[in-house]
Amino acid sequence: MITIDKVFTSNSEKQKLIEKFLLTRANTEFISKMLHTEELAIQAFSDASPMKWHLAHTSWYFENFLLVPYLNNYKLFSKDFNYLFNSYYNSFGDRLDKSQRKTLNFPRTNEILEYRNYVTENVIEYLNINDEIPIYLLNLGIAHEEQHQELALCDIKYLYGHNYYQEALILKKEEKIVIPEDFEFLEFSEGIYDIGISENDVNTSFAFDNESPQHKVFLHNFGIANRVVTNAEYAEFIEAGGYSTPSLWLDEGWEFVTKNKIKAPLYWNEENGSFYNYKFTGKELLNELEPVCHVSFYEAEAYSRFMGYRLPTEQEWEIACNLIGEEDNLLDFDTNLHPRYKKDINHFLGNTWQWTYSAYHPYPNYKSPENALGEYNGKFMINQMVLRGGSCVTPQGHIRKTYRNFFHPEKRWQFSSIRLAK
Amino acid sequence: MITIDKVFTSNSEKQKLIEKFLLTRANTEFISKMLHTEELAIQAFSDASPMKWHLAHTSWYFENFLLVPYLNNYKLFSKDFNYLFNSYYNSFGDRLDKSQRKTLNFPRTNEILEYRNYVTENVIEYLNINDEIPIYLLNLGIAHEEQHQELALCDIKYLYGHNYYQEALILKKEEKIVIPEDFEFLEFSEGIYDIGISENDVNTSFAFDNESPQHKVFLHNFGIANRVVTNAEYAEFIEAGGYSTPSLWLDEGWEFVTKNKIKAPLYWNEENGSFYNYKFTGKELLNELEPVCHVSFYEAEAYSRFMGYRLPTEQEWEIACNLIGEEDNLLDFDTNLHPRYKKDINHFLGNTWQWTYSAYHPYPNYKSPENALGEYNGKFMINQMVLRGGSCVTPQGHIRKTYRNFFHPEKRWQFSSIRLAK
Amino acid sequence: MITIDKVFTSNSEKQKLIEKFLLTRANTEFISKMLHTEELAIQAFSDASPMKWHLAHTSWYFENFLLVPYLNNYKLFSKDFNYLFNSYYNSFGDRLDKSQRKTLNFPRTNEILEYRNYVTENVIEYLNINDEIPIYLLNLGIAHEEQHQELALCDIKYLYGHNYYQEALILKKEEKIVIPEDFEFLEFSEGIYDIGISENDVNTSFAFDNESPQHKVFLHNFGIANRVVTNAEYAEFIEAGGYSTPSLWLDEGWEFVTKNKIKAPLYWNEENGSFYNYKFTGKELLNELEPVCHVSFYEAEAYSRFMGYRLPTEQEWEIACNLIGEEDNLLDFDTNLHPRYKKDINHFLGNTWQWTYSAYHPYPNYKSPENALGEYNGKFMINQMVLRGGSCVTPQGHIRKTYRNFFHPEKRWQFSSIRLAK
Amino acid sequence: MITIDKVFTSNSEKQKLIEKFLLTRANTEFISKMLHTEELAIQAFSDASPMKWHLAHTSWYFENFLLVPYLNNYKLFSKDFNYLFNSYYNSFGDRLDKSQRKTLNFPRTNEILEYRNYVTENVIEYLNINDEIPIYLLNLGIAHEEQHQELALCDIKYLYGHNYYQEALILKKEEKIVIPEDFEFLEFSEGIYDIGISENDVNTSFAFDNESPQHKVFLHNFGIANRVVTNAEYAEFIEAGGYSTPSLWLDEGWEFVTKNKIKAPLYWNEENGSFYNYKFTGKELLNELEPVCHVSFYEAEAYSRFMGYRLPTEQEWEIACNLIGEEDNLLDFDTNLHPRYKKDINHFLGNTWQWTYSAYHPYPNYKSPENALGEYNGKFMINQMVLRGGSCVTPQGHIRKTYRNFFHPEKRWQFSSIRLAK
Repeated sequence: MITIDKVFTSNSEKQKLIEKFLLTRANTEFISKMLHTEELAIQAFSDASPMKWHLAHTSWYFENFLLVPYLNNYKLFSKDFNYLFNSYYNSFGDRLDKSQRKTLNFPRTNEILEYRNYVTENVIEYLNINDEIPIYLLNLGIAHEEQHQELALCDIKYLYGHNYYQEALILKKEEKIVIPEDFEFLEFSEGIYDIGISENDVNTSFAFDNESPQHKVFLHNFGIANRVVTNAEYAEFIEAGGYSTPSLWLDEGWEFVTKNKIKAPLYWNEENGSFYNYKFTGKELLNELEPVCHVSFYEAEAYSRFMGYRLPTEQEWEIACNLIGEEDNLLDFDTNLHPRYKKDINHFLGNTWQWTYSAYHPYPNYKSPENALGEYNGKFMINQMVLRGGSCVTPQGHIRKTYRNFFHPEKRWQFSSIRLAK
Repeated sequence: MITIDKVFTSNSEKQKLIEKFLLTRANTEFISKMLHTEELAIQAFSDASPMKWHLAHTSWYFENFLLVPYLNNYKLFSKDFNYLFNSYYNSFGDRLDKSQRKTLNFPRTNEILEYRNYVTENVIEYLNINDEIPIYLLNLGIAHEEQHQELALCDIKYLYGHNYYQEALILKKEEKIVIPEDFEFLEFSEGIYDIGISENDVNTSFAFDNESPQHKVFLHNFGIANRVVTNAEYAEFIEAGGYSTPSLWLDEGWEFVTKNKIKAPLYWNEENGSFYNYKFTGKELLNELEPVCHVSFYEAEAYSRFMGYRLPTEQEWEIACNLIGEEDNLLDFDTNLHPRYKKDINHFLGNTWQWTYSAYHPYPNYKSPENALGEYNGKFMINQMVLRGGSCVTPQGHIRKTYRNFFHPEKRWQFSSIRLAK
Repeated sequence: MITIDKVFTSNSEKQKLIEKFLLTRANTEFISKMLHTEELAIQAFSDASPMKWHLAHTSWYFENFLLVPYLNNYKLFSKDFNYLFNSYYNSFGDRLDKSQRKTLNFPRTNEILEYRNYVTENVIEYLNINDEIPIYLLNLGIAHEEQHQELALCDIKYLYGHNYYQEALILKKEEKIVIPEDFEFLEFSEGIYDIGISENDVNTSFAFDNESPQHKVFLHNFGIANRVVTNAEYAEFIEAGGYSTPSLWLDEGWEFVTKNKIKAPLYWNEENGSFYNYKFTGKELLNELEPVCHVSFYEAEAYSRFMGYRLPTEQEWEIACNLIGEEDNLLDFDTNLHPRYKKDINHFLGNTWQWTYSAYHPYPNYKSPENALGEYNGKFMINQMVLRGGSCVTPQGHIRKTYRNFFHPEKRWQFSSIRLAK
Repeated sequence: MITIDKVFTSNSEKQKLIEKFLLTRANTEFISKMLHTEELAIQAFSDASPMKWHLAHTSWYFENFLLVPYLNNYKLFSKDFNYLFNSYYNSFGDRLDKSQRKTLNFPRTNEILEYRNYVTENVIEYLNINDEIPIYLLNLGIAHEEQHQELALCDIKYLYGHNYYQEALILKKEEKIVIPEDFEFLEFSEGIYDIGISENDVNTSFAFDNESPQHKVFLHNFGIANRVVTNAEYAEFIEAGGYSTPSLWLDEGWEFVTKNKIKAPLYWNEENGSFYNYKFTGKELLNELEPVCHVSFYEAEAYSRFMGYRLPTEQEWEIACNLIGEEDNLLDFDTNLHPRYKKDINHFLGNTWQWTYSAYHPYPNYKSPENALGEYNGKFMINQMVLRGGSCVTPQGHIRKTYRNFFHPEKRWQFSSIRLAK
């Protein structure tokens, strides 16, 4: 389904590709510049990576997926980098264990930035001199780097939010107050629906292999909420003893919250009876008029049970999004990098990821691509849950209605929220 | 959907219930008698329980779900037993941690058998004096005890198979050799199908809540194998380096086998270049003409990838079973308690559990029952995979076409096997 | 220093050896008979072993240290037992991991008892037909088996004391109440003292290698308590907040009690503001007039600091014991198997082990014996602390003034108590 | 024994104190300047701390031990720093868990350097305006900071040596080759000796509390090696199968090397049959003419057993050092920061730490000081072994013949070596 053959490009198409590629490269570097030099090498917890590693790994990607196989006489920037900056691709051999990314004092960030330039220039050179190019691979590299932009921002938030000072990373811009709309369910009728990206769309735009092939499902009547849950609503769950009522939880969710003494979403801290929330703009009294985020699947599911509802499946979510989904608040450094409500916008896309009650499994007739490409998505299709929609730190243009994000049900450092269904 | 109200029973219906109940109680005791007194208290590994605990817990179940709420003036056998023999029901309060079941030197098995008798007699008394009874609860107690018979047998096999001597538990009966049928796929056409137990069947026979409600799904064309994989076929996977080829594995599967140094199914041991297999009848040279079993989901999935196929979803499996499924080799102590092939039987039911590539999640519009009943199935609907079909240690009459068993993808001590799909 | 050469024995000497050997063998079996068959295979926690393992291992010892090397044409009872019942002797090859002693459903205890008889008979035969015998090895085997009697009793107490019912193992015999003597320090003057067993005593009686060689030490003036600490005195430490005052504790002791939420000695349970104590005779209200026991080194040390005193070194203890030590309350099944006070007896020997502030290290010029014998004591000379004195479950005749017992500082399941020094 | 009362200082004495203080402060900052800004916040493994933390913690020390109690109207630089830069002093309240020092992106190093200046200036001011000062506390703060200089250098070496590139930290200076002297034992006669710092020396110079009080010991005749073991000698142990011969090891040492797959000292890597050694000057082929270092106590002890000798006790070491000990190669940035041999120098002091077979316990009549001061040394007197002598990264003037360093027996990241005894 995925075509990685070289395809002829028109001049304008190529020009657009080059622009998108350059913009993506620049954005990653922009994010790294938000950090102080002292911070570039810090790995704040086991799921995170140092910023300098993100800078290098996204270059490693273009080098190994595009330049090595397609650019004649391409000379590796450094053989060592294949070991250091391979994330999880067995096809490319041994690699530094993720837990050891904290020891990357070398190479220096300067050298990594040279590496970035070298790779960027070589990709541009490759594009300039070739008219037939494996567009899919280039787009994949871009999408991959965009994913790492989001990951890097979440890693940074984790570091800043877990440091003693909870310093702001960015200045707070004023926003006008928006009262969340009244909660209601949008109703959809039973029937056969198409799920996943169409063959045509794959050929004309980009999508991951895991969104293919398009296939039919039968859905029963369902309702899905017009917006995600607010902080105020979630706080009621806490006040009602949600975190100490086992009957509201899946068994492993209950084990998770009790063992880790979890009493609220990540970045909420109780002080003198009030909740404070750490955001990129710093610590502040919890804003009840904002969407709840940084909850695990377990918390999302427990909340839905508390309310007498449930989480949507990814198919329900996708159909609803197809029919009525609106987008707002993707990554924009002129904002506060935090989810918000907006009048008349249902935020299916942008703002917050939304947990679904669907395991991240292959679609019917899905075939994992061969070689390293097959390791991108296919090998993670177990033990993880699908999130849909993108967030306020998802790069512009990165998200799609068919896009499937996935994390283990206990993860909380992404901007993950709750959209109810029934 | 589940009716736990009291329902009027006819005399003959009641008589049949009493007989089934008594048979089930007797069977559990029969299994316990296979063990030497020295073994009754052993907890061989963290997933297992001592036999004496199984004996007690299955009685605790009838006591707390049936006798306490329905039998007037019922007097608990022992209040302490509520703590000791509660497995995982938060609704019934605190309980002995599973890891501490190894310290159950008290109560003695004699006392537990008295407990069993006391509960059995009270249930019989209750049935005798009442015509309106909560039949569902009674059937649930029976089904629950049957599940523990299967668990107990698997726990016992684990103990015997991991003891240095690998002694036989039962005498080997001669069986005629059956050559497995040629492998082929049975083809099914795309369309809308019904999945799950019908409302009518729930009312007239027994099924678990997790099989409800019946609902529609759309399935694409699919093929499903006419039999499960043989030991010979699985051995080829091993010889071809299956356990050392990361590209064949899901990422967490690869981690599982490498970290635990797994090189073959549970109970296979290599000695001098040949595989030996521990079975209830003792250790023997691997019989290549038998179904492979005691594999994890990870191994099942890797094998399917190695073959260029995949595992079925639980929906595909159920539809195929509905249309052509045949049953053979459920628990029968006159057999070798091991899976086998049989001419012209496809063994969808009985023989071995079959891993599906479906997460154990709620069906559309599933509602977990209230209170303790809701803890039976609903709270486990995360991180586990569905197995279908029953096995050679599943009690007669226990299995159904809609039956959903579930285990974490790494578990191997059940009789779990592989039926391929495409 | 240790002579393991064969030495000529007189008839009467040999007769005494035979009697001691037979008595020791009988005593171990007597202990095993205190248990119900259901309990023989239970391993209650990681430091404990099942009783049937103790029965077998003590036989394995005589077989491999005496019969195999010295009895002509001796035929091993079972080659497999070398694997199963070797505790930690690398010289004898691979062995069952201690954590797997819980899977010893086979061999059955009956077979182990046959093994015991076989070994006992062969040892007797060997002794009857030889006049020159390696007396040291025989005595070592006896001492080793006595150690396992004490270990087995402590393992059993752990199982009974951690079972929900805290049943008594033995009937309580009435004892007359003894008021502990007023606490005082016995004073000793500085000077050069001899420590350890003399060469002469090693040759004429038995001692472990770790008590040798006798050597000189210089001790400064010191005082040592006339009795061990009472439960009442220790309870004051608890009431004064001892367990929540970090300045009273060694750093790793503080970590130990906080991490494990330890608030009192092992077997003390607080219920409604009173302490209950589990003893072999069952659970009872804490008897304040008894010696405290089942404390870790950490607790002993913290208590001594709380009192403004310290623990004695093993050299101080030994010199005091040499000069004034009295013995009482070694293993005697006609007692309650619990420490007690007795008028005018200072209980240096018997009653309770006493933690010293001495690491278990080799004495000057200590040489670990060759081969397996060297593994008995020498290889544990790191990270453990010396206890002195023996206890109410130490077999009669087993203890000596020079005897060095050793455990890690956090261990509590032995009868370990506190004798203060200054 | 320790006098922390304020004592009158002469002008010249005060001047010397001020100079020593300023030099110590400057040296720590000099070490931090060896690092790239990117590295200042890295915590390379659990025993290490980021350099910026060392910078701050050594200031916290002077602030809390000297300025707060003694300088009138002293204003804390930052209350938060009490939480962030307290290492392990319960007396000063809660503190950041050591594992979380990796999240110290704030405060920035600049701010920490301001903190350093602030503290330095206030100490100077305090000294300038007072003639009666608690000299002990000042010296303790200096000694404490010197210890952190050594720790920081070892932490840095760990980071550099565990990074993929094993880059040099300093330029290699040429050194003339020195053939190690022939190995021989220096003999000492039995008798009563004085151990520990004399009361007089404590009053006129500085020593830690753990070196007091001076006391008498009786030592038997002993011999101690004229130099530490060479790399060549240690390599013979490896070639002879030392790491795969359990009889050479203490039991927990054997467990340590097998579990962690240790086959050589830290920083030795085998490539193509040769050993390479990482040093501050970079990776190089193992120099056989240098002292072995970075071995654990377990390896030191196993090596001594392999040679038929043993390790000295700390008393033997101290007496030998008192009588014949020579010093060479303390911290000097004009050297290669690595141990070496030197003609006619026995290197008891300087060059490498030397493991002793003595547990780190209190001396007779040792009294831990009150309050925080008592936490400095006293609370670690369990489970650790004494090292003597100082190393090539121990600051000049820091070491003494009575100095007791201590680490757990498995630690290897200090410059720890082996001096044999018999």
